[in-house]
Amino acid sequence: MRRDLRDLRELPGAHRGGLVLVACSGGADSLALAAATAVEAPAAGLRAGLVTVDHGLHPASATVAATVLEQGRGLGLDPVRATRVDVGRTGGPEAAARTARYAALRAAAEELGALAVLLGHTLDDQAETVLLGLARGSGTRSLAGMPAVRGPFRRPLLGVERAVVRAACAAEGLEPWADPANADRALARARVRHDVLPLLEDRLGPGVARALARTARAARDDADALDEIAAASDPFTGGAAAVADLLPARPALRRRWLRAAALGAGCPAGALTAAHVDALEALLLDWRGQGPVHLPGGASGVRTCGRLVLSPGAPPRGRTPQTS
Amino acid sequence: MRRDLRDLRELPGAHRGGLVLVACSGGADSLALAAATAVEAPAAGLRAGLVTVDHGLHPASATVAATVLEQGRGLGLDPVRATRVDVGRTGGPEAAARTARYAALRAAAEELGALAVLLGHTLDDQAETVLLGLARGSGTRSLAGMPAVRGPFRRPLLGVERAVVRAACAAEGLEPWADPANADRALARARVRHDVLPLLEDRLGPGVARALARTARAARDDADALDEIAAASDPFTGGAAAVADLLPARPALRRRWLRAAALGAGCPAGALTAAHVDALEALLLDWRGQGPVHLPGGASGVRTCGRLVLSPGAPPRGRTPQTS
Repeated sequence: MRRDLRDLRELPGAHRGGLVLVACSGGADSLALAAATAVEAPAAGLRAGLVTVDHGLHPASATVAATVLEQGRGLGLDPVRATRVDVGRTGGPEAAARTARYAALRAAAEELGALAVLLGHTLDDQAETVLLGLARGSGTRSLAGMPAVRGPFRRPLLGVERAVVRAACAAEGLEPWADPANADRALARARVRHDVLPLLEDRLGPGVARALARTARAARDDADALDEIAAASDPFTGGAAAVADLLPARPALRRRWLRAAALGAGCPAGALTAAHVDALEALLLDWRGQGPVHLPGGASGVRTCGRLVLSPGAPPRGRTPQTS
Repeated sequence: MRRDLRDLRELPGAHRGGLVLVACSGGADSLALAAATAVEAPAAGLRAGLVTVDHGLHPASATVAATVLEQGRGLGLDPVRATRVDVGRTGGPEAAARTARYAALRAAAEELGALAVLLGHTLDDQAETVLLGLARGSGTRSLAGMPAVRGPFRRPLLGVERAVVRAACAAEGLEPWADPANADRALARARVRHDVLPLLEDRLGPGVARALARTARAARDDADALDEIAAASDPFTGGAAAVADLLPARPALRRRWLRAAALGAGCPAGALTAAHVDALEALLLDWRGQGPVHLPGGASGVRTCGRLVLSPGAPPRGRTPQTS
């Protein structure tokens, strides 16, 4: 597991005593990461610290945070820091807690001048994320799972099975905290972890989690490449593009352009579904003089005078759709 | 369900009495397709026939085929044809039966001069195919499921739930044959159908099958686009490419080029895994002067003199890998 942390040596600022922070919940995965980082960071010329986020969501949360700080000190991490957050409600309990947690970690990293924040997500977490994305069915991007690197965040254990990480935690003699949320079947991730993945491993053969993690990597590479290629060739300017430029394009690019144009017209990303893109695409592929496509956030798309026009409001008055 | 057959009107040769064949196993899905085609094909100016493949894999197979022919005649399909195949062993029982079946359907279409062969795969079959591809973990292409159109084959029911198709079959008063293979848990598809998908629908919410089918479509579009873009920009000629051209490329393209070069060096497609492509990529991204990468089928990849060379045999004698 420690060799998965070797990439720390490539961090700009390594070998010069820069700081990396381990984000530690007190669970077995992030505790094992903290222990491994305590050894590997100095070997890479880095200092290692710890930050734990107290979500205030259960009565023992302050006690858990205090225990984590103590464990961090015991591992020789310095500084160790607990940060309390207020979890909002936007997007449901899981998303709200995640948003608050990442904001707090980012703030701690900035305040302490850390080069990176290390997260303890394992290969199994990645597999769960892919399955949750699959259930949404919103395309290649939703299968891309969690990135190994994004902004200050790094996930050095994404290629390591949870069982290996847990064994490393036990071998260190660390006492992990069992977050009751991990067993709460009201949360989709817990259902995936405890019910769905074990059944998949049983029915489709061992190695499904690893296959899902491989899928995530390939899907991320593909989505990144197509997003870049689509952005570089996007024919929309000022919310409008010629039907003649859109019609012959590859569906993978055209649908990305339509999505980007809808977002550009103020459609909220979370509310824009494949069905909306289907409706916009029908203005091109199944054109029968139909009226405007109404999109979330009040935006609309209309085909007029040989052009597809995405507008923040209802389509301009006075223009009626016509065969074009 | 019948409106899903409206695309038949776009077939070149429609309105001029061309022939379409329904591939019918006698199961509920393909019987319902046969009944719908018997109505919709004439409306599109087409003749509708039926072909059933007798795999000879169970004692009653000839009787089943005879019943299917009778049902086809009862629906007014003409011609109706049974074709007996010998199922080989290559790739396991499911793959061997599929290979034999598609070859027989293609031969029947050619012999009868059919414009198309219609297959009764439903949205649920598509969802199962995506899950089976996911368990392989071989990238976006393996999530692309079955195409709606490929060669002479068309799958007009890919957007229709199996329950809807079964209800249509029952409404026609047709007596379907229950293929025991569909219940045989020794087959991966049966396990996905009876165990995995129902659990996913239960734990992740209804609509998972539809989400998987949407994923298939997006993954197919993305894989098609990237395969085309990669082929058009492939820097390999004669099995070799400059490291300087490979290193800065997007991973999604570079990995497709490496895969294509390995296939070009005679590596069998079924034996080439993501791990082989990883090893080739390490000659670029993690270059420490390492020796040749040995690939299935005796092919090998080596980095030498600033170039990556894929050869059908061992790397050329006399050359030893060197820092380049």
